[in-house]
Parts: sequence; structure tokens; C-alpha cells
Amino acid sequence: MTSKRTIPARRFIKPSFNYLIEKKRDGQEFTQEEIRYIVDSTLDGEMPQHQLAALLMAIYFANMSAQETAILTEEMMLSGEVIDLSHIAKPKIDKYSTGGVGDKTSLVLVPLAMAAGVVVPMMCGVEHDYIISPLDKLSAFPGFDGNLSIDAFTKQLGRIGGAIVRQDEKLAPADAQFYALRKETGTIPSLPLITGSVLSKKLAEGAEGLVIDVKWGNGSFIKDLEQAKQLARSMTRVGRSMKRRCVALVTDMNQPLGDTVGTALEVKEAIQLLKGEGPEDLQELVLKLGMEIVRLAGVAGSTLSAKQTVQRHLTDGSALEKFKDIIKAQGGDTTYVDHPDKFPAAKHIRKLPAPKRGYVHTIDAACIAKGVSILNGSNDDKKGKIDHAAGVSEIKKVGTQVKQGEPLMMIHYNDEAKLEQALECFKAAYRLAPKRPTPPPLVVERVA
Amino acid sequence: MTSKRTIPARRFIKPSFNYLIEKKRDGQEFTQEEIRYIVDSTLDGEMPQHQLAALLMAIYFANMSAQETAILTEEMMLSGEVIDLSHIAKPKIDKYSTGGVGDKTSLVLVPLAMAAGVVVPMMCGVEHDYIISPLDKLSAFPGFDGNLSIDAFTKQLGRIGGAIVRQDEKLAPADAQFYALRKETGTIPSLPLITGSVLSKKLAEGAEGLVIDVKWGNGSFIKDLEQAKQLARSMTRVGRSMKRRCVALVTDMNQPLGDTVGTALEVKEAIQLLKGEGPEDLQELVLKLGMEIVRLAGVAGSTLSAKQTVQRHLTDGSALEKFKDIIKAQGGDTTYVDHPDKFPAAKHIRKLPAPKRGYVHTIDAACIAKGVSILNGSNDDKKGKIDHAAGVSEIKKVGTQVKQGEPLMMIHYNDEAKLEQALECFKAAYRLAPKRPTPPPLVVERVA
Repeated sequence: MTSKRTIPARRFIKPSFNYLIEKKRDGQEFTQEEIRYIVDSTLDGEMPQHQLAALLMAIYFANMSAQETAILTEEMMLSGEVIDLSHIAKPKIDKYSTGGVGDKTSLVLVPLAMAAGVVVPMMCGVEHDYIISPLDKLSAFPGFDGNLSIDAFTKQLGRIGGAIVRQDEKLAPADAQFYALRKETGTIPSLPLITGSVLSKKLAEGAEGLVIDVKWGNGSFIKDLEQAKQLARSMTRVGRSMKRRCVALVTDMNQPLGDTVGTALEVKEAIQLLKGEGPEDLQELVLKLGMEIVRLAGVAGSTLSAKQTVQRHLTDGSALEKFKDIIKAQGGDTTYVDHPDKFPAAKHIRKLPAPKRGYVHTIDAACIAKGVSILNGSNDDKKGKIDHAAGVSEIKKVGTQVKQGEPLMMIHYNDEAKLEQALECFKAAYRLAPKRPTPPPLVVERVA
Repeated sequence: MTSKRTIPARRFIKPSFNYLIEKKRDGQEFTQEEIRYIVDSTLDGEMPQHQLAALLMAIYFANMSAQETAILTEEMMLSGEVIDLSHIAKPKIDKYSTGGVGDKTSLVLVPLAMAAGVVVPMMCGVEHDYIISPLDKLSAFPGFDGNLSIDAFTKQLGRIGGAIVRQDEKLAPADAQFYALRKETGTIPSLPLITGSVLSKKLAEGAEGLVIDVKWGNGSFIKDLEQAKQLARSMTRVGRSMKRRCVALVTDMNQPLGDTVGTALEVKEAIQLLKGEGPEDLQELVLKLGMEIVRLAGVAGSTLSAKQTVQRHLTDGSALEKFKDIIKAQGGDTTYVDHPDKFPAAKHIRKLPAPKRGYVHTIDAACIAKGVSILNGSNDDKKGKIDHAAGVSEIKKVGTQVKQGEPLMMIHYNDEAKLEQALECFKAAYRLAPKRPTPPPLVVERVA
């Protein structure tokens, strides 16, 4: 089921960690052996934390070449188990997003791809601040279990063609070490380190191809468009060098996606999308990403046929059926899919009134996410139960005209004590202006 | 006798270490409070080593402004005791060198300055690889003690006007923490960190002025001339901002200074210099640095009077007398000054023959130093006794013409087992060429 590093260790005289730090500091390229040694000594703790920290900062500044990044990714991947899905005959494609506010596309795309005959082995990793992961959302279904063993995961993929589970710790364990240190040393935003971190885990899942959604903007951890494009290029390049089909879309995250943020509210919106309905921006993103998946899988050749495939499965109920298959396979109550009104409703719903008339000029998506995390309790204790009913809906998007006092959004909450603090976030998120702004394009660039 | 930080701590909300790392990573300037907090939390161990390591690497790449460097230096100085010499009425000037091979100028300049009425409070700090410190050299005098308490140091300065002792650990203790980490994280060559490290200790010694010899070349840890100039500017600027008179000379270290390398051999050469004799290059450097000291001290006004002052004290025996005063005050046997033949001679002396005829084109001073460190045993065990007799003499300098088989230097050694390895270093150090090279200028730049 799993495969390990196959290249035998050649004669390699271990360099000092100091030498490696100085080499990168001076802008030189590491060899494959050196990168392997760094990954290995990180994993087994041989490399002291302070030296690894200095090395990571040197990488931040001096960067890594495309080849170094590919080697780093591969060595990190080979630091743990690599799932072998070759016994499953269908095409196996996964989707990855750098994380966005209100993004419920994964809940739609996984069953959609399954309906099109694509196997989707989706594992969800560490999430960024305030971002609600697909697993957080699915936990709104009573009984749903995201913690599958690799064995159960693989079996489910063979049986129903898809799974959405928590990242297994046995995959790319070196990354956990790197990531813990990066968080404390200001080295999270390094492109080669991000690429290595994400792809080492994603490519260990056994997929043959990967569709990547690189988000840029105030709701993403990548605030800069140019950097997002670079990351998209870095990821697709490394993916290709590891013999995987890869496509990345650089997409807008300067406002929440869709009309809702919050676990149950987002699941309900996802169910709408699975019926071919729902907000325009999400419909567009599902279509674009879905087309990439089916083309990468080879189940659709032309753009037109890809579009038709996606639209058919969203309107004929087949994607929705596959969604129920996942919920059911992982122990969730599928009656909630047919009757979304079964999801608990919040005790209180109130509007966020527009302070003046005008156009919604900008929305700080991170502020919205933070406000919701306060309301649903994911802010105060990561291990605590999320209040699935809490969130916001009917979000007025950028470019919408509003009158004074008209709702900018509806706030769903159970705990009155938390409202004030959350309200501050929501208020701070909105900027109104007298003139209609040009809404930003949703898909900025396609990198293949 | 000592003074502590006088500025009261203002209201300062401690930032996270992550914030500080990211701030420097992004090229921003630290405030005085932030730098003080970094120094304080380094000293008391509050800042984890891995975060400090990342911060040091960020400083290496993003640099520090002149003001930040000055603040860092001052805060590091204030992390420990600061010696107050204001009760001594004479001018107090120290001399510092970044370290060079065959450099015995300190042994000459301290008594020379004393003879001119200048108090020299010299403490010797951490030395770089293979460099023989002034204290190592003075340890060739039986009985000499370089470990004085701050109290004994201050009393000796009041009594005889000079002292050459080991850096006291109570001075700028934050530096020891920084330095230990810099050694392991590739952050030794950072200009602001070097400046802070050196000057925090030097300026804690109580001198009003400092003459700095910044060496560049293959025998210095600064290989690049431009970097040496930058360091000279950084140091004088910081010295001035801390209200000290400062002059720096950027000098050549692309070959050993003088004709000898080795403890007793160098002491003997220093005694020659104290009599106004000795090799030309050393005479020139002693004159130039000596003139800077007496001018900085105000005991000589014009260039001419400075030159005359230096030359007078070297020829009238007064500098030599002061040298004996130091040796005596610190327990050494002064009869060795009058009878340098009392120093132990090596059992074996052999030549390093020129492999062909030609001109000495380049000498790698670091190779010479390494060879000597092998012969005198300072290489195998830092705590072991140095073999004072071991070393090299009659070094043929760059530009000298030699016939095949003629000695490039004489090698003094007691331990035959070490000869071969040392010979390899000496041979590798010399490059001969058919044409006479232009010898490099000794003093490249004066920075005031």
C-alpha cells in the first residue's frame, strides 16, 4: 500500500549544518544529497532547531531554484508513507486550495468529479487562521467522521470513488517539523517552503493529478497577486517534475466567496451548488475548477465537453448523490442533504446595517472570517465544539448598491455575549463608497 | 566603579518574538525599546534560541541602520558592567584589531602610548581561528598573568597606565550569547552584529577613544576590501554616536605582518620594534596606528608632532620600559625583555625551500597561521599549553625574488610528528610567479 524512497543512498559525506547554512546564505544551490540530509536530520531531530531556523530564514531570503524545490518536495514526501492507488483503475485527481473565506467549492467538486468518473483522494491539512476547513463544515452532519485510517481511506476510494478526510500524520512527517518551526520563525511565506509543505503531502495521497486554487487577497495568506502567481508557477512546475499532471488557477480572495460564512450555512450553500443553483461567483468557480479536474482526468477532451460534463452532473442530481455517498460512507446523516432545514438554526438573526448609502467598495474577508470564528467559538478553543448554526448570510458583495440602514449581511448567533466583539469585526470589514467600484476578476490566471 | 543603564524603562508592551522576526525580515527598523527587549530576552534566555537564530539571519540579510547598530551596541554594552575610569586624569585610548597573522603591533602600541602619557585599558576578547592573540604571545613570559579582576585591572591602569588582560565576562555578557549562536548559524559576517559585538565590549572598558585596525584579505575573516571599509565606517560611526573618539585604518592582511609567526618569535620581533628596529611593514603600521593614538589622545596636535612623538618613544627606550612595566605588573619575568635569547629555542629549525625560481606572488596568511597552529599545538587543544618556541621566521614577503631551493621561511619546531602536516600548509601558502607583483598598500584607507 505504501512505497518508500527507492534511490539507494550514495556515498555522501555529511556536511556540517553550519556549512549548509552558509551555502544557502551565499545563494548557492543544494545538491539532492544535501537536501535529503536536511530533511532526514530534521525528521530525526539531528539538526538542532536553531540551525534549522537559520537555514529556513536563509531559504526565505536566498530562495531555492525550481530544481531544489522539486527535490525538497520529493524528499519531504518520501519522509513518510506514500499511498499507492494504482490498483484503482479510474483516473485519480485531487484538488487543493490555499484557503479562502466562504470557500465551499471542495464540498461540491469532490462529488462532482466522482460523478464524472474521477477518483478524488482528498486529505485536508493544517488550516490557516480563521479559515473553516471542509472537514469543519462536514462536521455539521451528525455522525460524520473525518478521521479515517489510510487503509479505510483507500478502501473507501475503491468503493465509492472519493473521500474527504483529515491529513494522516504518517504522510510527509518531515513537514510537521518544518511547519512548526516556520510558524515561530517568520518563514511561513517562503515560496519553496510553501510548495514543499503543500505538495509533499498532496502528492503522497496517490493522485495522478492536482488542480490547485491559489487565492490572493485580503482573505488569503497571500496578499500579493504577483506572489500568488509565483506560487502557482512553483507548484505546477514541481508537480510536473514529479510526473503529476498539474493545473493552478489564481483566484480572487478579496471578499468572501458566495453569500455565507459558517459551517451549516456553508453546507446549505454547497447543497444548492450541487443542484446547479447558488451564488454566481461560486457557480463560476465550481465550473472553472470542475472543468480543470475533468480535463486533467481525461474524462473530457475539449473545453466545451468539460463544461457540459460539469453542468450535467450538477443538474441531473448525480453530483448530489455522490455527496450523499461520501456523507454516508463516513458515518454522517444523509437526511440532512435532502432536508437542509434539519441543520440547527441560530437563536438570533440580526442584520448588519449599512452605516450610509453607497456602493460596497471593499470587504476585508479576513475580518468577516474572524467575526464568524468569534461567533462559532472556533476562536476561543480550537478543540471546542464549533457552533454550527453561527455565521453570516446574505453577504452584500463588492459593487452592490445599498441604502443607509439596509443589511450588509445577516448575522446568525446563539451567544449574545460574543455579538459585540464579532460586530466590530463585521463593521470594520466593510467600506462603502459613493461610486460603483469595478469588481475584481474571479479567475486571474491559469497556470498549466 | 561600574554604571548600569540609566534610562528608565518606559511603558513598553512586549511584542511577540515572531513579530520582531517578521519586522526585520520585512526590512523595517527596530525601535530602541525593541532592541533593548531583544538584548534583555537574549541575556535572560527568554527568547528561544531558534527564534533568535532566525532573527540573526534576518539581520544578516535585511541589515540594520546606523542608528539601530548604535542602539544595539549600547544596549549590549549596558547588559553588563561598564568600567568607569574617570578618576584617572590622563587620556584613555584603546586599540582594537579585527585580527591578523603575525600582527604584534598591540604589544608595541600599548607601551608606546603609555610612554606618551596615554592610558591604555586593553582587554582581549574571543579570537578567530588560528589567530595568536596578544595574550597568547605574552604568555611566553614565565609568570605572566592575563586574568585580572576588573578591580586589579583598574588599579593597574591608575598605577602604570596600561594593562593587557583577558576580556572580563562581566562586560557585555549579552554578546557571549549572541556570539555563541552566531558561530552556529552562519551569521558571523553580519556588519551590524560584528560592530555590536566588538564595540559593546571595547566601549565598556572605559576608554574615551578607540583606534581600530580593520584588516582585509586572506589572513582576515574579512576577505573583501569593500566589506572592510563598510565595517570601518560602521564602527567609527557607532563609536562617535556613543560619544567616543574613533579612528579606523583599513589595512592589508594578504600576507603575514613582519617576518615571524609564533608566540616567542613574535615577542622577540615586538621587542625589536620597541627599540625602533624590526621589519619595515610592522614599523610602518606601528607608526601609523601610534600616530592615531597620540592624536586621538590629544597629546600630539599636528601630524608631524604625532610622528615625532611615536619615533621618540621607540628610540629613547621609554616604550620598552613601559613594556617591562606591564610584564612586571602582571607577574612576568622582565629579564626576558633584556635577554630575548632566554626564550626557549626550538629543537629543529629547517627551511621551506622555494620549489622554483621567481617572485613571491601571493602568500595565503591563513595557511601560514594554520601551519603554525599545528606546530605549536594550539590547533589540537585550545586549553593545552602552547609550544612557545614553535613558529616560522624570516618569511619572504610578497614581491621578494627567490632562487630555486632558497628558503621561503625558516620553520621552528619541536615535534617532528607534526611537521609534515604543517609543511603542507606552508607549501600551499606560497605562490611564485615569473614577474614581480605590485605589493599591496599596507594602509588602504583611514576612516575618521
